[in-house]
Amino acid sequence: MSRVMMISADCHAGAPPATYAEYLPRKYREDADRWWMLYARESLTRAGTFFDQEAVAAFNDQVGEAGLFTRVVAPGYEPSDDELMALLTDDSSPFAPRRGEFDPEVRRRELEGDGVAGEVVFPQMAPFGAGLQQYRSRIAPEHNLAGIRAYNRWLADFTSSERARHAGVALINVDDIEVTVQEVRAARESGLWGGVLLPTSTGDHPYYHHPRYEPLWAVCEELEMPLHSHSGWSPDYGDCPGASAMYISEVDMWAHRPFAPLVWSGAFERHPGLKLIFTETGCSWVLEKLRVLEFKADLDIFAHFTKNLSLRPREYFERQCYIGASFMYPHEGVDRHRIGVDKLMYGTDYPHIEGTWPNTMAELRKTFATYDEDEIRAILGGNAAAVYGFDLAALAPIGDAIGPDLSELRSGATGL
Amino acid sequence: MSRVMMISADCHAGAPPATYAEYLPRKYREDADRWWMLYARESLTRAGTFFDQEAVAAFNDQVGEAGLFTRVVAPGYEPSDDELMALLTDDSSPFAPRRGEFDPEVRRRELEGDGVAGEVVFPQMAPFGAGLQQYRSRIAPEHNLAGIRAYNRWLADFTSSERARHAGVALINVDDIEVTVQEVRAARESGLWGGVLLPTSTGDHPYYHHPRYEPLWAVCEELEMPLHSHSGWSPDYGDCPGASAMYISEVDMWAHRPFAPLVWSGAFERHPGLKLIFTETGCSWVLEKLRVLEFKADLDIFAHFTKNLSLRPREYFERQCYIGASFMYPHEGVDRHRIGVDKLMYGTDYPHIEGTWPNTMAELRKTFATYDEDEIRAILGGNAAAVYGFDLAALAPIGDAIGPDLSELRSGATGL
Repeated sequence: MSRVMMISADCHAGAPPATYAEYLPRKYREDADRWWMLYARESLTRAGTFFDQEAVAAFNDQVGEAGLFTRVVAPGYEPSDDELMALLTDDSSPFAPRRGEFDPEVRRRELEGDGVAGEVVFPQMAPFGAGLQQYRSRIAPEHNLAGIRAYNRWLADFTSSERARHAGVALINVDDIEVTVQEVRAARESGLWGGVLLPTSTGDHPYYHHPRYEPLWAVCEELEMPLHSHSGWSPDYGDCPGASAMYISEVDMWAHRPFAPLVWSGAFERHPGLKLIFTETGCSWVLEKLRVLEFKADLDIFAHFTKNLSLRPREYFERQCYIGASFMYPHEGVDRHRIGVDKLMYGTDYPHIEGTWPNTMAELRKTFATYDEDEIRAILGGNAAAVYGFDLAALAPIGDAIGPDLSELRSGATGL
Repeated sequence: MSRVMMISADCHAGAPPATYAEYLPRKYREDADRWWMLYARESLTRAGTFFDQEAVAAFNDQVGEAGLFTRVVAPGYEPSDDELMALLTDDSSPFAPRRGEFDPEVRRRELEGDGVAGEVVFPQMAPFGAGLQQYRSRIAPEHNLAGIRAYNRWLADFTSSERARHAGVALINVDDIEVTVQEVRAARESGLWGGVLLPTSTGDHPYYHHPRYEPLWAVCEELEMPLHSHSGWSPDYGDCPGASAMYISEVDMWAHRPFAPLVWSGAFERHPGLKLIFTETGCSWVLEKLRVLEFKADLDIFAHFTKNLSLRPREYFERQCYIGASFMYPHEGVDRHRIGVDKLMYGTDYPHIEGTWPNTMAELRKTFATYDEDEIRAILGGNAAAVYGFDLAALAPIGDAIGPDLSELRSGATGL
C-alpha cells in the first residue's frame, strides 16, 4: 500500500458565539451578542428566500429528523430570541459551526478519516461579521477589529496543540494599515503561520492598487505570510428570488479581482517573495484572466503603466501565485498543464456541505484516477507543503497512516 | 468591385455643454454649468495621473502643436474657469467631443470616408454625468433624469435628418422604473430606434436580478428596443498611479455582468423577444462566462433556481444575446465559430481614439482577410441589420457607393 501525503489547502474552523466572548474585550461583549442576534435573523430571512419547502424536506432527510432549523424556517413562523440564538449552536442548523470546527478531537478524527494529514485553516463567521463576509455590511471599525482579533486569538489557541498540522490563516481588516501590520505580526507570533485572508471587499477604502497597502505587502513578504483571496464575499443581492443564483454565479468573480492590482501597482515587482493564493474559486478561470491581462499589457496605452515592471502578468503569476483549487472538478483538471501543475492545491473544504468531506476518496477518484503519480502527489499535498512550508518530517507518520491509498485512488472511474 | 454593406455597431455622438442647455429645463441650467466645471476639473486631475510628460509630448505630436490641454495639464498649472470650460470644447482637448459627434455634415463625411453606411449611436458624456459613467458619482436624481432627457432629445434631433442610417441608443436611469418606462416610450416615439443603454451600475438600487426591473424588460420587448451593456463604467479607482491600469483591466468585467441576472431572474424566459447586446467589451470572454454559468446551472443547489427556466444559460444567449464586438481583434476572431458568427457585429467606435476610424480598412484586413465572404458580410453589417432592423433598401445606395471593397479587404495580411 502506497499512501499519499494529503494536505487540504482549504478547511474551515470557527467557534460558537459564546466561545468568542472570552476573546473579546469585556466592553464589546453585549454588542457582540446583539450582533449575533442580528446575524441569526438575517440568515433566517435569507434562508426563507433560498429554501422552498422541497429543500427544507431534503434538509430534514439529511439531518435525520425535523430539527430547530426546519421549524423556524417555516413561512410565517416568528422565532423567539432564544430560538434565534440556538440557530447559531444547534446541530440541526446550517448557521451553526459543526462540532469538528471547534472540538480538536472531533476534528482530528474527521480529518484523518478523510485522509487529511495537514490543513490550511480558513474562518467561519466570526464576531461582528469578521471573516469571509467582511465589509458586506457597515460595521463600526472598533467592532470589526475586535471581531478579527477575537477570531485570530481563538484560532491560535485552537491550533496550538498540533501546530504543524494546522496552517491557520489570520483575519485582517484594512481600516488602518498600521494597525493591520501590527495584527499580522501578532498573528504570526501567536502561531498562525498559514498567512492572512485578504478581505475581498475593502469597504469604503481604496482597492488594492492603492499605495496605502504597501506596508501590508511588505510585512507579508517579510514574515512569509501568503495572502489569500478566498471566495465567499459578495455585495448584498437582497432577499428577492434571483439573489442566491446571483451569489453563486458571481462569488468567484469577486475573489479573482486582487491579481490585477497586485500586478499593476508593482506590489509583486517590489516584493518578489510575496505570495497570493486563490482559494475555493476554481482554477480554469485564471487562463481567461491571464489572457485578458496579457492582451491589455500589449496595448500601446499600457506602456505608461508597465515601464516599472520587469515581468509580464503571466510571469508574476508564475513567480508568486497559487491556486487552492479545493475540490478540483474533472472539467477543470484538464487545464492543469496550461495552468501549471505546480500551481494547484487540493482542498476538501472540511466541514462545509459543498466540500468533499467525508467522501473525499470518491471525489478524488473522479478527477485524479488517470493522473500521473507525481501529479497526484503534487496537487494533493506536495505543492501545499512547498508553498506553506509544512514540516513534512512531522507530518510523515500521520500521512503514512491515514493518507489516501494511491492504488485505490487510481482504480477509480476513468478521468479526463 | 464588390462592396460590403458596413454597419458600425458602435459609434458615439455627443454635443458640447452649451448645446445641451436648450434641452434642459431652465431651472437646471446653472446647475448643469456647475456640474460641467466640476467634470472638467476632475478630468484634468485624472489626466495628471494618467499622462506623464512623455505622454503629453506624444499628444502634442498627435494634435500637431501644443494646445490648451497640454498647457493646463502641466504639473502645478492652475487653470482659470474659462480654461476649464474650454477643455470641454477645444479641439486640442481629449475631453471635448470631436466635431463629427455633433456636426451632421462632418459626421456623414467621416463615416462614409471610413466605409460606414449605417451606425448604432452610443453617448458621450452628457449633462450631470448621464451616459456610460452614470452612477459612478452620486448625483441628485432630478439632475440625473434631466441629463438623460436632454441627451435623448438632442440625439433624436441630431439623427432626424437621416433616421435610417442612425440607430440612436437612448439613455435611461433606474431610479424609478415607472419613469424609466415612460422615458423608453418617449425615446422610441422621438425616433431613437437603436434601443436603450442599460446603466452598468445601478447605484444604490438593487442589481438586475431584482423583480423591480420587470416593467423595463416588458417595455423593451414590446417596443423592440434592445438593451445594451456598453463598456465604460467603473467604480472610482482614485487618482493613484495604478488607477488607470485598473480601469483598463476591469472595465470589461463590469459590462459583462448583466447576462447572469437576466437569465436567473427569468427575464429572458418571460420575454423571449428581449435582446441584450454587449458592446465594446470584446467577444471571447463570453465563452468563459457561459462555461461558468453552465457549470453552476448543473450544481445540485441550482435545481431550485432553474425549475422555472425552460432553457439553459447558453440557450438564452443563443436566443437573445449579441455582441457588438467593435474592433474585433484577430486573437478574438479565432473564437467566432464557438461563439456563433451570427452573434458578432463589428463597430468602429467612431470617433474615439481607441477605435478604428479613420483607418478601418487597415484594421479590417488584420482580422478578416482570410474569412469567408459570408462571414465578412455578416459580421460587418448583415448581423447588425438583422438585430436592429436597419432598412437595407434605404441603405443600399450608400453601401454600394462607399462600403469597403471586398477584394481590397481580402488582399490584406494573413489573418488567423
